[in-house]
Amino acid sequence: MTAGLSTAQAVNAYSYLSHLECGRCKKQYGAEALHGTCECGSPLLARYDLNGAKTALTPRALSSRPCRLWRYHELLPVRAETNVVSLGEAMTPLLELNRLAEESGVRALHLKDEGALPTGTFKARGAAVGVSRACELGARRIAMPTNGNAGSAWAAYAARAGRECLVLMPRAAQSICAIECTVAGAHLGVVNGTLSHAAAIIRKLAAESDWYDVTTLREPYRIEGKKTIGYEIFEQFGWRVPDVILCPCGGGVAIIGIHKALAECKAVGLLQEKKVPRLVAVQSTACAPIPRAWAKRSSEAEEWTNPGTTLAFGTLVPKPLGDFLILEALYDTDGCAVAVDEQEIIAAQRAIGSREGVFVCPEGAATFAACKRLRADGWIRPTDEVVLLSTGTGLKYPNSVSEAPPVIDVDNPGRILDLWTR
Amino acid sequence: MTAGLSTAQAVNAYSYLSHLECGRCKKQYGAEALHGTCECGSPLLARYDLNGAKTALTPRALSSRPCRLWRYHELLPVRAETNVVSLGEAMTPLLELNRLAEESGVRALHLKDEGALPTGTFKARGAAVGVSRACELGARRIAMPTNGNAGSAWAAYAARAGRECLVLMPRAAQSICAIECTVAGAHLGVVNGTLSHAAAIIRKLAAESDWYDVTTLREPYRIEGKKTIGYEIFEQFGWRVPDVILCPCGGGVAIIGIHKALAECKAVGLLQEKKVPRLVAVQSTACAPIPRAWAKRSSEAEEWTNPGTTLAFGTLVPKPLGDFLILEALYDTDGCAVAVDEQEIIAAQRAIGSREGVFVCPEGAATFAACKRLRADGWIRPTDEVVLLSTGTGLKYPNSVSEAPPVIDVDNPGRILDLWTR
Repeated sequence: MTAGLSTAQAVNAYSYLSHLECGRCKKQYGAEALHGTCECGSPLLARYDLNGAKTALTPRALSSRPCRLWRYHELLPVRAETNVVSLGEAMTPLLELNRLAEESGVRALHLKDEGALPTGTFKARGAAVGVSRACELGARRIAMPTNGNAGSAWAAYAARAGRECLVLMPRAAQSICAIECTVAGAHLGVVNGTLSHAAAIIRKLAAESDWYDVTTLREPYRIEGKKTIGYEIFEQFGWRVPDVILCPCGGGVAIIGIHKALAECKAVGLLQEKKVPRLVAVQSTACAPIPRAWAKRSSEAEEWTNPGTTLAFGTLVPKPLGDFLILEALYDTDGCAVAVDEQEIIAAQRAIGSREGVFVCPEGAATFAACKRLRADGWIRPTDEVVLLSTGTGLKYPNSVSEAPPVIDVDNPGRILDLWTR
Repeated sequence: MTAGLSTAQAVNAYSYLSHLECGRCKKQYGAEALHGTCECGSPLLARYDLNGAKTALTPRALSSRPCRLWRYHELLPVRAETNVVSLGEAMTPLLELNRLAEESGVRALHLKDEGALPTGTFKARGAAVGVSRACELGARRIAMPTNGNAGSAWAAYAARAGRECLVLMPRAAQSICAIECTVAGAHLGVVNGTLSHAAAIIRKLAAESDWYDVTTLREPYRIEGKKTIGYEIFEQFGWRVPDVILCPCGGGVAIIGIHKALAECKAVGLLQEKKVPRLVAVQSTACAPIPRAWAKRSSEAEEWTNPGTTLAFGTLVPKPLGDFLILEALYDTDGCAVAVDEQEIIAAQRAIGSREGVFVCPEGAATFAACKRLRADGWIRPTDEVVLLSTGTGLKYPNSVSEAPPVIDVDNPGRILDLWTR
């Protein structure tokens, strides 16, 4: 509306979505019906008329648009602005961590803080775009299994859209996510089993009825929301790329999305330099199929049997459906994969909190632990500009802290205060 | 930097702060030293060269500035941009609640959702500006009593500024806030008493040492951060005002701040209409000194003895230091004050969650309960445009929900699913 007056611009489409394409076998599908995965079982990816989008999606046009993910609407799948389901998802901050950069011996360290999004995590991006597009295509009700945060986000956006939502989570999921689903009015069940059990129940339900299965990468549009992390980082760098981006990796949608954003931004000319950021997938040693596959230069991951426990439970995915796309993103950008342990994660979370003031989720903290490891072994260089992706707020992880504060006696507050206030 | 090239603009000040003035006795103080309250014990308010600011702070100038509270820097107290301590506090969304507007019988209902701010509440605004200015004026370390959310915010910004922070909270404070203070590396103690006991300890400590006491309204700049809620609402309305703004009220800094924003926006010409929004202070029936004082048309509140408990614990302030400023804001705008009970709060929180997808804090939910009450008795009219201020995210209040989700047996999921999926 605000940008320009020429006839060409007046007829611009809100979305330049053209079709869907299998990420593995490349089979194409029309984009105007609800789809799940490809016949071959792999995720479908949204493809766009990039030449068309190129004339509309320019840095100049972007400069006058609201700071929220819909600013990139030409390369998002929703056809009509009136179909956008929004909870006010603002562009998240890219914070400079100057103290930690200096201590870590890198030129610049930035934190992309996704905790500011609705429901407190980056899952809101996928849910905003996924729910909007599902409703635009006529989905009446949606169902999903979740480890927690995705369920919260999709339940909230379904409520915003006025659609029914069904969420199943394992008992081990964090309690705050169950609370969020309840407040959002979702049908919520806790399964006496694993995430895979929950997924099987949802798959059967969807096959037999009109519930739309929105499990990770089993519908094509969640990744379109997630890729906006990449668009925002590149725009916040002034349409340049950093040297390294470290992402927590569970299902891998963020890293696949950033890789997709990179290709699209280059194709439409938003990014004009040849350089690519080295993408790093970060997992917990409790469940590290991607670092293991990367170490072997495999194109797929083997299932991680008997995953352990970790505070960074968002990374607990033994065999991601999009494993080949994650690994492709790493190989294509000269990236790598790293597994970090609980002590490193907790120490990193405290360092970011006490040195920079941000309470990041354990998954986000894991990226700083990985950064320190990669700097120590020289893979990250002193001249590198590094971005850490913190996928959510620490507020959803009260078990990050185990110590209790001391009790101060109001009649005799002296001893502890003396110690602190010397 | 980006706006204009004239000489006049080139010499614009970052802040037009001129002096401090007592909100009660009007005694003036210089603004370039650290101050607490006035000699008379009342809060000091920041005053600006409004004629100077008028030429610089225009809707046009604002249109090219980043969407964060510092966009109003001419009317904020920080002298130099390099002294800004920021965690990326973005302009918070103003969400239309169309379903609830229709159900409530008002023309338009908007939710100002402060949950998107760092640390998840509006306290981040006060802490961002308060910590920035305290550091600019040379404060070496800061101390405060808190019911929870303010402590989290100030601890985070103090860490971001690289300053020591000491926080004392009553045992009854929510545990997540203690966790946040710990992660931020603050000195944190829990007192075996009330907020007043904690405040007395801090006051003594500050009197005897170099700890700067940043208790609510005992330093002049927290309110300057909070007033940006008003600036944002007016700007998001296209520099118009809504008919009614409902604010949760504890210490009252939000309502005092919005009232101050209204006067300043009119003085510098950002708001050109004569209309003022009717401001409503919302408290819990557990502790309602402001509604009681308003009902008597008193200019001050009497202390509420024996406050009860409420989920909306942010409103539990028996005798706010700025009571006379809160009441002045109500009388001056033809506003009112309302107390709502726990059942109304919980019902309102569920309604906003399930009908609109936002998990608001109980304090925020209380404003919708009050809106329904005021609409029912005709004080809010069908033609009114109404804004609800939700001061934080529900994520910090896990005790909002007591029911547990049903357990689904993975071997026999039928019964409950059948019920839901009919």
